[in-house]
Amino acid sequence: MITVRIFLKLSPDTRIGVGKVQLLEAIDAVGSISAAARSLKMSFRRAWELLDHMNKAFGSPVVAGHVGSAGGTELTELGRLIVDRFRRIEAETEAIAAPHLAELDALRLTAGSPKAS
Amino acid sequence: MITVRIFLKLSPDTRIGVGKVQLLEAIDAVGSISAAARSLKMSFRRAWELLDHMNKAFGSPVVAGHVGSAGGTELTELGRLIVDRFRRIEAETEAIAAPHLAELDALRLTAGSPKAS
Repeated sequence: MITVRIFLKLSPDTRIGVGKVQLLEAIDAVGSISAAARSLKMSFRRAWELLDHMNKAFGSPVVAGHVGSAGGTELTELGRLIVDRFRRIEAETEAIAAPHLAELDALRLTAGSPKAS
Repeated sequence: MITVRIFLKLSPDTRIGVGKVQLLEAIDAVGSISAAARSLKMSFRRAWELLDHMNKAFGSPVVAGHVGSAGGTELTELGRLIVDRFRRIEAETEAIAAPHLAELDALRLTAGSPKAS
């Protein structure tokens, strides 16, 4: 099945896609960057780089509190807004794309079976 | 300004983003893969690879006619449908995202200027 994905482009080099949003959601759920990274099978270093890209792109932090392994990390208001708005745009995009993707999928499914009636 | 981008995911390895769509649009405009590639500052080889990915993902060709430098290449019905549906989803996504992105942009603009009133 063909699906649609979105990403937000903040600069030629900085994008926010589902990977960064999942990281923010995991931090919100578990309260620690290292535990969030672990739950996503991502290194702490990589998680930190992703957060740092977002912090720099917005000029303001997306997480607050202790940033080590001790826990006590939470999303800032900005971090929460990024997650919320990304997920809203994504849900609305999926809804509007559905009929268009169904059409493309239909062409794709019949393409491999020329005798389908 | 923060913008939203979309891509279609056909398989874990195959995506159709704006790059492939622009290639199809250029072929439609100039009638040749090599001239289309040139207009996008892309090698013929790269253009051919992108088309081949799409052909394989759909099991049906996205362009027809002569595929060399002689011209006479045109989009198939499938190729046209991909362009049309991608651009429709993109336009609708941009429209629904606009107010959400404006909110994020506002936070971003003030982030760098703490004294802004």
